[in-house]
Amino acid sequence: MRKEGAMVRWVRWAAAVAAVFLVGFVIGWFARPTSSPAQDEGTSSRYLRTLLDEMKPDNIRAHLRKFTRLPHLAGTKQNLVYAEQIKEEWLSFGLDSVEMVPYDVLLSYPNKSQPNYISIVDQLGNEVFNTSLAEPVPQGYEGVADIVPPYSAFSPKGQPEGELVYVNYGRTEDFFQLERQMGINVTGKIVIVRYGKVFRGNKVKNAMLAGAKGIIMFSDPADYSAVGVQPYPDGWNLPGGGAQRGNVLNLNGAGDPLTPGYPAKEYTYRSNPEDGVGLPKIPVHPIGYHDAMHLLRNMGGMIPPNNWKGALNVSYRIGPGFTDTFKTQKVRMNIHTNNQVTRIYNVIGRIRGAQEPDRYVILGGHRDAWVFGGIDPMSGAAVTHETVRSAGKLLSNGWRPRRTIIFASWDAEEFGLLGSTEWAEDNAKLLQERAVAYINADSAIEGMYTLRVDCTPSLHTLVYDLTKQIASPEEGEAGVSLYDSWHRRDNWTSDRDAPRISKLGSGSDFEAYFIRLGIAAGRARYTKNRKTERYSSYPVYHSVYETFEVVDKFYDPTFRRLQAVAQVRGGLVFKLADSQLLPLDANEYAGSLRKYALSIAQLAQTHLEEMKLYGVTFDALSSAVENFTVAARDFHVRLQTLDKADSLQVRMVNDQLMYLERAFIDPLGLPARPFYRHLIFAPSSHNKYAGESFPGIYDALFDIENSANQQQAWQEVKRQISIAAFTVHAAAMTLTQPA
Amino acid sequence: MRKEGAMVRWVRWAAAVAAVFLVGFVIGWFARPTSSPAQDEGTSSRYLRTLLDEMKPDNIRAHLRKFTRLPHLAGTKQNLVYAEQIKEEWLSFGLDSVEMVPYDVLLSYPNKSQPNYISIVDQLGNEVFNTSLAEPVPQGYEGVADIVPPYSAFSPKGQPEGELVYVNYGRTEDFFQLERQMGINVTGKIVIVRYGKVFRGNKVKNAMLAGAKGIIMFSDPADYSAVGVQPYPDGWNLPGGGAQRGNVLNLNGAGDPLTPGYPAKEYTYRSNPEDGVGLPKIPVHPIGYHDAMHLLRNMGGMIPPNNWKGALNVSYRIGPGFTDTFKTQKVRMNIHTNNQVTRIYNVIGRIRGAQEPDRYVILGGHRDAWVFGGIDPMSGAAVTHETVRSAGKLLSNGWRPRRTIIFASWDAEEFGLLGSTEWAEDNAKLLQERAVAYINADSAIEGMYTLRVDCTPSLHTLVYDLTKQIASPEEGEAGVSLYDSWHRRDNWTSDRDAPRISKLGSGSDFEAYFIRLGIAAGRARYTKNRKTERYSSYPVYHSVYETFEVVDKFYDPTFRRLQAVAQVRGGLVFKLADSQLLPLDANEYAGSLRKYALSIAQLAQTHLEEMKLYGVTFDALSSAVENFTVAARDFHVRLQTLDKADSLQVRMVNDQLMYLERAFIDPLGLPARPFYRHLIFAPSSHNKYAGESFPGIYDALFDIENSANQQQAWQEVKRQISIAAFTVHAAAMTLTQPA
Repeated sequence: MRKEGAMVRWVRWAAAVAAVFLVGFVIGWFARPTSSPAQDEGTSSRYLRTLLDEMKPDNIRAHLRKFTRLPHLAGTKQNLVYAEQIKEEWLSFGLDSVEMVPYDVLLSYPNKSQPNYISIVDQLGNEVFNTSLAEPVPQGYEGVADIVPPYSAFSPKGQPEGELVYVNYGRTEDFFQLERQMGINVTGKIVIVRYGKVFRGNKVKNAMLAGAKGIIMFSDPADYSAVGVQPYPDGWNLPGGGAQRGNVLNLNGAGDPLTPGYPAKEYTYRSNPEDGVGLPKIPVHPIGYHDAMHLLRNMGGMIPPNNWKGALNVSYRIGPGFTDTFKTQKVRMNIHTNNQVTRIYNVIGRIRGAQEPDRYVILGGHRDAWVFGGIDPMSGAAVTHETVRSAGKLLSNGWRPRRTIIFASWDAEEFGLLGSTEWAEDNAKLLQERAVAYINADSAIEGMYTLRVDCTPSLHTLVYDLTKQIASPEEGEAGVSLYDSWHRRDNWTSDRDAPRISKLGSGSDFEAYFIRLGIAAGRARYTKNRKTERYSSYPVYHSVYETFEVVDKFYDPTFRRLQAVAQVRGGLVFKLADSQLLPLDANEYAGSLRKYALSIAQLAQTHLEEMKLYGVTFDALSSAVENFTVAARDFHVRLQTLDKADSLQVRMVNDQLMYLERAFIDPLGLPARPFYRHLIFAPSSHNKYAGESFPGIYDALFDIENSANQQQAWQEVKRQISIAAFTVHAAAMTLTQPA
Repeated sequence: MRKEGAMVRWVRWAAAVAAVFLVGFVIGWFARPTSSPAQDEGTSSRYLRTLLDEMKPDNIRAHLRKFTRLPHLAGTKQNLVYAEQIKEEWLSFGLDSVEMVPYDVLLSYPNKSQPNYISIVDQLGNEVFNTSLAEPVPQGYEGVADIVPPYSAFSPKGQPEGELVYVNYGRTEDFFQLERQMGINVTGKIVIVRYGKVFRGNKVKNAMLAGAKGIIMFSDPADYSAVGVQPYPDGWNLPGGGAQRGNVLNLNGAGDPLTPGYPAKEYTYRSNPEDGVGLPKIPVHPIGYHDAMHLLRNMGGMIPPNNWKGALNVSYRIGPGFTDTFKTQKVRMNIHTNNQVTRIYNVIGRIRGAQEPDRYVILGGHRDAWVFGGIDPMSGAAVTHETVRSAGKLLSNGWRPRRTIIFASWDAEEFGLLGSTEWAEDNAKLLQERAVAYINADSAIEGMYTLRVDCTPSLHTLVYDLTKQIASPEEGEAGVSLYDSWHRRDNWTSDRDAPRISKLGSGSDFEAYFIRLGIAAGRARYTKNRKTERYSSYPVYHSVYETFEVVDKFYDPTFRRLQAVAQVRGGLVFKLADSQLLPLDANEYAGSLRKYALSIAQLAQTHLEEMKLYGVTFDALSSAVENFTVAARDFHVRLQTLDKADSLQVRMVNDQLMYLERAFIDPLGLPARPFYRHLIFAPSSHNKYAGESFPGIYDALFDIENSANQQQAWQEVKRQISIAAFTVHAAAMTLTQPA
């Protein structure tokens, strides 16, 4: 009995101990996290808020002031000095590493001892008029050395002499009109065109193809003055003595002309200068409107249609040559510019990702400027500088992003996106496998009206979500979000009740990342009112008048607009780098593809009969887009039941999102443009600045009117539709559940 | 006092309970696995053993018997019947899914009502001799319909008539010798060459470039008979009436000639037949040595050097034309073969990966045969069939691989690797992002001596490890491993004390996966003694005598050699799909690169003076290889301290290993060969069968002797060295620690 009692007690004891142990075990079991300790989304949101609030107008102003005191053209000492300064400051801000990455690329400079200019010469060959050799230096910069005079980079040397022909903007359609409707042949003539509408390199190519022996580009007040605004320094319009510098290459994404496809390192093979990609074969030179007046005012020939007339007090006669008493005068270009392989420097800074160091989010923009770069690019570089400083602050507060962030200060953008393209070529394999997104950081402001975003469709949703968390910088809009301010000013019209977002074109450093490598990309800046302000770009673009003051006095005196741009760019980078699930939206891509497929099919509708004759239909493309739409929808439905605690599952869907943009890349490239490989977005062959959707089909349709062999031209349209349809199908496959 | 005692007891109690709880908690905490419950390596090894033991000689024999009863040329009904049968059986073996994937590609068939043949015609045009219209049908197959007669697929139609010129093997060097040393021009002649040494398409291309108007290829006993072996059916030598079928394309990896770069689907744009990639422009026809005797025996012209002489009882005079009394006779080819877009079918089966369904390991081989396909390809298809059956058995035992396994039965390999290439084009995006490795499953046997493995260097270590776990199939080698048996028979000589492993060339379905997409690849088969057996391929190759019996009676009566090949191929697939860490070895790649870099530099040493003159050095390449070697070593050192319980860490290093092969791909391709993109391994332009290392440099050096402009030819060598050096550097970068 007693023994039994002891036994019972013992059993009770043991049971109690076991029960307590079990409770402990179970609690211990479930208390242990089963995946790596990811920052939760709430913490990440708080860090985002901290980042956005950390970026300050005064700091951006100070950065801009600091980096716009001296000219810093690519390949010059001063641009290296700024690079070293940026490197040191980024390190002091707390980045994990910052390195200088040099390349040796083909640049182009005027000959210092033999200036470029254009003359009117009489029949004896005497120069009766010469264009100016430089722009009047703005107040406060009088003593500054090394201001490069206006020139067209990569113009060949030469002194062509001949009659002038005026060809409006020098677009493909302008030359068509000149040749077909006006019956004027420019072979052996010198062409004069106004800047604007399309990339200047396209104008030069068109003039070459038409047979001209030289081309002069001028800034017409119709295109480079805002109504009711004074010329600089009293306002932000281009003075008559100002002119637009710029390269006149047709690189189509090749980067350094001598090393297409490969980084321009010391050991890299360089082609002969005459075989360089995209180099113009005829002399080119830019002038301001004071000089243009002199060349235009005595021109003869027919009166042009109204849409060929600018705002100068001349008749804009077409030519060829001068009128009446000036008949014997000719125009001579005197161009002595040299091409020269020159060392350039990118600055590359990194924050190592905590969980996925092998996933990269890139914020890149250029540092080189034609002169001071008050807007282009330093308004963007100042914004990036503040973003780096703020991210460094977060790091010191204990934050570390899930993925790696790369900050880049590119060199030689103005010479054909060279720094960014060479680095993309150097790192192509890594980027192709690991890059999540590229956010561009060129000029942060080109107007005083509202936000402008150009990005890949999968970023739409993130841009909207983010701008709702940012304040409007506009006076009198306290408490209004940037999203609402932007929406109010630039609604997407009938298509969609949301702020307008545009397609990416080219002309800045995202090109190699987006169009060659297929990395999701976007850019954001403050812009003008697209409905009321019709001038091209901003008036002082690429002139000596792009100073710190033009921003400080006119564009953004409070620096709150630049702050808002910093918050958008920085916020995008933060969300892309720190969200557990990538904030990319395949449904938005599907919606955009549907819109583009409709629109390209509509474009073809003007040729209904030929389409019937040659058996051209868009059915394959529509059905591919339909297929993609279903795949995208199903993908996002599956995301809703994803086990976010399973890090391998998360990685797999993130890989699908990351590689979605890559799926639109065709390694064979677009016809005759091997480095433009994105089949959904690329510039048309007729204007590098404008992004076209389905550019292969677009160009093939464009060529229909231009082709002697209609049968063959329509076969090319069919081929392009087939390739686009296949690519959209292939992209849809990448969204379906693996295996 | 009493109260205090109760308190003390209570405290003791509480402490004991807490302690027990704590022990439970701690044990519970540590007992919980922190990563997804991966199969451990021990379990995986046991499953591998089960898989290897499951594959049985008798089953392989039965599969081979079943699939070689009837001719099953690509595009024919019977090849679809076999496809459907394979699909049903793979499903019954337990694969998760099996689908038929059709493409519509350009094939080529003789005209049934107008047979192809070659005549000797007299001066009146009478046919005094005609080659045979078919091979004598082997015993046991007398009643079989649809045996396609020997022909050269994709030969154009035509009836060229002219004098014969004998050009040995028709290699580039043979034509050089003919033109430069013998001074013979083949313009307007018909060329006759013997089969062997290089891919037949290269012979045809050389003849075209030399100006010939037709080409005849014959099987010489010197190249298609083993010493002391009887012709089939008494032995495995080629009878005099047998001839080698085969396509004569120069596709360079393009796949379907009408849809280069894109899958040949219903909606796909097709180029005009005359613009098809790689189609020969002159008639081509193959004959056996009985027929060849008639054409060769009266030939006139010079006596050739000894290495131009085969084993027939003729003088092998070069021509042009016949001798003496036969002077007036000419040769006429009568070719009526048609090209025709035809539907083909791949069979694709899958086992979904348990942990990483988005990682693919592929075992693929073709099903289509010229006639019965006793060796080519059904010895391989039978082995694959047994592998699928055994993998299905494992699945039913509870196994599921970590990664997805894809089994493929390709169609139309014999017509230019069409089925495999179209599928690669169709799935390029997915494969580029997700494919871990491709194991090829063409003919499993071509000799009776030992194992032959051709693979990428990163697979060397796995091949060695695996073959140590497989038994030698050779009589009298009980207890000897396949590794030891192989090592004893084919040591890697001075380089290395291990069994020889060779480079991948082309000529089978791995081409698009390895050379275009950069997926680690390998192939394994049983082979002849390379030192003593000098005939090309195996004697009955592509003749009607490739029957079940040639394997069953001669090559592998016990089917243990095919079993060993099944174990190697299946074992490779198993290890690649089921190992937690990918069994790929970057150090082996480094070692191979070092060897190849030395060897290509040595090849150039014959031109020391020109190298000095044109400033050609291999320094950049050596230093890139050195860099790669260090990166590979460091990578594998880091692997040793990897936390294998962290599934994200494991995924990241596996991604680096998977993408290593991809890093050698250049989207721009090799010069004029846009679909050969692997810069380390590709066939030379002069022989598709042979894999060259650094093929861009190799071809550039080859062209030195051939080029009128030495300056330019050496510039191309420099360019290729620079590209190779860059690519090796880029590959090294992919192995360094991310961020």
